Amino acid sequence: MGKAEVKKIIIDCDPGHDDAIAILLAGADPRVDLIGITTVAGNAEVDKTTVNALKVCEIAGLMDTPVAKGASLPLVRKRETAADIHGDSGMDGPLLPMPTKAIADEHAVDFIIRELLASDGDITLVPTGPLTNIAMAMRKEPAIIPKIREIVLMGGGTLGNWTPAAEFNIFVDAEAAKVVFESGVPLTMFGLDLTHKAQATPEIQERIKRINHSVSDFVVELLQFFMQTYKEVFGFEGAPIHDACCVAYCIDPSIFTYRKLHVDIETKGEYSYGMTVIDMLGVTGKEPNVNVALDLDQDKFWELMIETLTKYSKAT
Amino acid sequence: MGKAEVKKIIIDCDPGHDDAIAILLAGADPRVDLIGITTVAGNAEVDKTTVNALKVCEIAGLMDTPVAKGASLPLVRKRETAADIHGDSGMDGPLLPMPTKAIADEHAVDFIIRELLASDGDITLVPTGPLTNIAMAMRKEPAIIPKIREIVLMGGGTLGNWTPAAEFNIFVDAEAAKVVFESGVPLTMFGLDLTHKAQATPEIQERIKRINHSVSDFVVELLQFFMQTYKEVFGFEGAPIHDACCVAYCIDPSIFTYRKLHVDIETKGEYSYGMTVIDMLGVTGKEPNVNVALDLDQDKFWELMIETLTKYSKAT
Amino acid sequence: MGKAEVKKIIIDCDPGHDDAIAILLAGADPRVDLIGITTVAGNAEVDKTTVNALKVCEIAGLMDTPVAKGASLPLVRKRETAADIHGDSGMDGPLLPMPTKAIADEHAVDFIIRELLASDGDITLVPTGPLTNIAMAMRKEPAIIPKIREIVLMGGGTLGNWTPAAEFNIFVDAEAAKVVFESGVPLTMFGLDLTHKAQATPEIQERIKRINHSVSDFVVELLQFFMQTYKEVFGFEGAPIHDACCVAYCIDPSIFTYRKLHVDIETKGEYSYGMTVIDMLGVTGKEPNVNVALDLDQDKFWELMIETLTKYSKAT
Amino acid sequence: MGKAEVKKIIIDCDPGHDDAIAILLAGADPRVDLIGITTVAGNAEVDKTTVNALKVCEIAGLMDTPVAKGASLPLVRKRETAADIHGDSGMDGPLLPMPTKAIADEHAVDFIIRELLASDGDITLVPTGPLTNIAMAMRKEPAIIPKIREIVLMGGGTLGNWTPAAEFNIFVDAEAAKVVFESGVPLTMFGLDLTHKAQATPEIQERIKRINHSVSDFVVELLQFFMQTYKEVFGFEGAPIHDACCVAYCIDPSIFTYRKLHVDIETKGEYSYGMTVIDMLGVTGKEPNVNVALDLDQDKFWELMIETLTKYSKAT
Repeated sequence: MGKAEVKKIIIDCDPGHDDAIAILLAGADPRVDLIGITTVAGNAEVDKTTVNALKVCEIAGLMDTPVAKGASLPLVRKRETAADIHGDSGMDGPLLPMPTKAIADEHAVDFIIRELLASDGDITLVPTGPLTNIAMAMRKEPAIIPKIREIVLMGGGTLGNWTPAAEFNIFVDAEAAKVVFESGVPLTMFGLDLTHKAQATPEIQERIKRINHSVSDFVVELLQFFMQTYKEVFGFEGAPIHDACCVAYCIDPSIFTYRKLHVDIETKGEYSYGMTVIDMLGVTGKEPNVNVALDLDQDKFWELMIETLTKYSKAT
Repeated sequence: MGKAEVKKIIIDCDPGHDDAIAILLAGADPRVDLIGITTVAGNAEVDKTTVNALKVCEIAGLMDTPVAKGASLPLVRKRETAADIHGDSGMDGPLLPMPTKAIADEHAVDFIIRELLASDGDITLVPTGPLTNIAMAMRKEPAIIPKIREIVLMGGGTLGNWTPAAEFNIFVDAEAAKVVFESGVPLTMFGLDLTHKAQATPEIQERIKRINHSVSDFVVELLQFFMQTYKEVFGFEGAPIHDACCVAYCIDPSIFTYRKLHVDIETKGEYSYGMTVIDMLGVTGKEPNVNVALDLDQDKFWELMIETLTKYSKAT
Repeated sequence: MGKAEVKKIIIDCDPGHDDAIAILLAGADPRVDLIGITTVAGNAEVDKTTVNALKVCEIAGLMDTPVAKGASLPLVRKRETAADIHGDSGMDGPLLPMPTKAIADEHAVDFIIRELLASDGDITLVPTGPLTNIAMAMRKEPAIIPKIREIVLMGGGTLGNWTPAAEFNIFVDAEAAKVVFESGVPLTMFGLDLTHKAQATPEIQERIKRINHSVSDFVVELLQFFMQTYKEVFGFEGAPIHDACCVAYCIDPSIFTYRKLHVDIETKGEYSYGMTVIDMLGVTGKEPNVNVALDLDQDKFWELMIETLTKYSKAT
Repeated sequence: MGKAEVKKIIIDCDPGHDDAIAILLAGADPRVDLIGITTVAGNAEVDKTTVNALKVCEIAGLMDTPVAKGASLPLVRKRETAADIHGDSGMDGPLLPMPTKAIADEHAVDFIIRELLASDGDITLVPTGPLTNIAMAMRKEPAIIPKIREIVLMGGGTLGNWTPAAEFNIFVDAEAAKVVFESGVPLTMFGLDLTHKAQATPEIQERIKRINHSVSDFVVELLQFFMQTYKEVFGFEGAPIHDACCVAYCIDPSIFTYRKLHVDIETKGEYSYGMTVIDMLGVTGKEPNVNVALDLDQDKFWELMIETLTKYSKAT
């Protein structure tokens, strides 16, 4: 009788409110083994997202999880950040002390390459920010490509949020996205079609509040800030915790429903740069290259979220 | 107490199964005055779509409605037709005699220009094919622009049907679409988001069959062929009568719901050429330039359809 | 013994200093028959270039040559003019009375179509401005394409003058240029590689001055203004009379040397929109579609120019 | 009175016949200190260009010069090589034994970053292949940018050789070129406008032959093969030793003449992807960002070449 598999993951992120929740989810669920966190410029400059990652590790007690700092600029384009959504720090809202945990003494790209080359092909990459680090690792050392078990990414969608056609993560570095989507690695994509359904409503926030622990309180503060900017910018009533969906998938893929579809990345368009062009009707005749998450079981998703956050209160 | 206004329209079309139904709808409802039909290459070559338009006029008894032949090629691109959807003739299915009605002795572009310049600004253009004729008219005689009351077009959508990003009519001549969408003329757009909801299901087809008249029989034959290709190509269960929605709007705009949004036309993209980039979330900050139809009242829509087709049986 | 052929030409222009000289050249040399002048927006708005064309006709005594007004806007893009080179009127410098000659009662596009359809295939089109009218005529009535004997155009080059990659005429309406260059019609192209060698230096201007007639004086005034803006904008020492080269070619092709090369029109580039991409080294393997003029016999060219202008002084 | 400065350079190359000559030039002239060679995919796959670099080091006695292998793929695009010009090995022609010299135990990108960070800002980068390594180093560690003294690159030109608009090195990785050209680092560019003037004619090859030494014999074999492919593909009568110009510049910049111009890299164009868009006439108003070499003193250039190759015969 087999023991349930523990999935090794590296979260490549730009915390980021929802990135923080993704890390917390991965940090407490026994079904995933978070072997490292790498950071990238995205929601904010990479120095800020790295500090934020360290802060999240400290509050979650992830003192042994290496945090490696990565790319400060997209592969080709100029940098673009999302201060109107995540605040100037990239994770405005909660007030946390400056972290004492040190940054790993290795570039994120080299951390990813080294871990993959040393692995048995059992590492899943979970990029929740722009795909700069992943693409750069693939280009610096193409031998990693067959070693990647799967890439589970937050990005894209049939509609955009940064431009009418492009979601922020893909828009910020569409060239990197092109490299990743054309790499041949198994991809599961959590785009806006899915993540906009993963909104932490006031009711959900109330449930989290009742856990009554420093970690859950931190999450509530994240959600309150995030819900506020989503209301102001997009008119939403809840806070979509995009990035957490990727980790939830690693823990329990049965939460979501999917379609295998062909996706191309637009890097030339005048109005559609950074679009994930998803062949929903199968008109291109191209082989599907992406497992696109399109719906979720709300109950299972939030149950997992509450349960995991509750684990932190029991651990201490 | 005033008499209800009769809306003057020119249908610019490429029949086309659903174009044919649009013409039939316009030909029998007293709330619109179909002052002319112009043809364009699209679903098939312009010689074929012109013959088809004449055939529809004959079966509908529209012997005095001028039919002016227009552009045989897109403004800039090479020609592309849709034989897999509409058959080689552009209107495969029903077998009709060759029309005796003559083509108007004037190019579609000149017909449009002349009618508009002579008008009081009360003509609505209803393009249900590629926008080549309309754009060429606007460029040949820009003085028509302030004379156009409204353009009610079938085209575009947040998803495509010809490529993953582009709907056929816009894809076939995106440069023409760019001219029209940037013209400043009031636009109402019936894209796939709406028209895929206007599917003539087998039940609807049964209702039409029961009218039991040569016109309704013709419509049933159109729908049977069209439903078949939509099933084969897209897996649909009904025949979406895209173009008829535009005429239904001219007759009774209360059938549909709309949002005023900014729409740009992508003419540069590698994977998104011909896309109508619709700013659903208002992220561009640009002024809305299009009234986008997004939903319809099924009952009202099909009621109008049945009623109008029934008028033909009473007329003879 | 056969009489030398007289070549029928239509000049499609946007006068424009060098366009004016092109018209004067065509108006006096017996080897060409200028059957009409059509105007287009380019160096200035089309109303201005049309008035300028009429003025040139009047000073040249071309009272029976029809002048038909054409497109006021490019096929797809926004309008761009060249006031810094040609002044606000499009032909600043000489002061001429408002013309009494009337504009033809026909759109340039229809004039071109009618003349070509009625011809024996013996008409050469000489576009010296943006190619909007020619492209629109080809799209409105594709049957003219096999009727065009040749198109002799001023435009393009391996280097640009409006952007680093694009010459003004092609940049202003690259979509129209694409239509024309892909039409299959025999094309001879006078681009900047050639026309920048056709500079009316102060010495040349002195020779023209010595003709001492109202037409030659007009030319001197044109050249003085044009030389001045070329000095200010480009640092040139003479006035390149670009458009006149096309007419000189119609009169005596032995003045120039040529290479048959493949030329594509760039309509997508970020920095190279409107470029004539000339395959100088034959690396594409594509069939040559353009006869590219690359050098000229200075003596023969200026001799022709002086001789022709002298004809005006003898005519009166 | 001071000793003449010795210029520290890293050659980043894809040997390549002319790359090999560039290395030989740098290896023997006392005015440059070749502190390392990095390799990249270009003329051939990176494994081949690395072996070729090692072979050149061995024949030149550069046993202590580190050779670090770099990128095997462009930053974003698919790989493209130039077997029709350089043969399958990337350096066909001379038959050399497999090298015994080892590849450095460090990725080219990391070698470049480490050397630059440890330097006093006195290192010049000399890329003679696609700019992948340089761009990747700039993106992985932006802190190197102010440390680079100058980049002296072979690439681009007003005309292309791989497409009508693009030179091979820039075309192969235009995204990398964009990063480098927009980096703000002082750039001197040896494009085809210059390098096609640096043709080793049969007479030059005869002079080199007379040196009568293993290194000069190797160069003659390189030139014979290269001259042959240039004759077949481009109709040239000599072998243009493009890359050697960059090293000649490092040794004696007075050999060449230059203009400071603005250059943009085209990454979007349909026919002009990979073009260096050079603002020769200053029409953009943008600040010059590149020192563009445009002419050379043939005598000085070949004198330097012969003298340096002669040094090898005296060294042994």
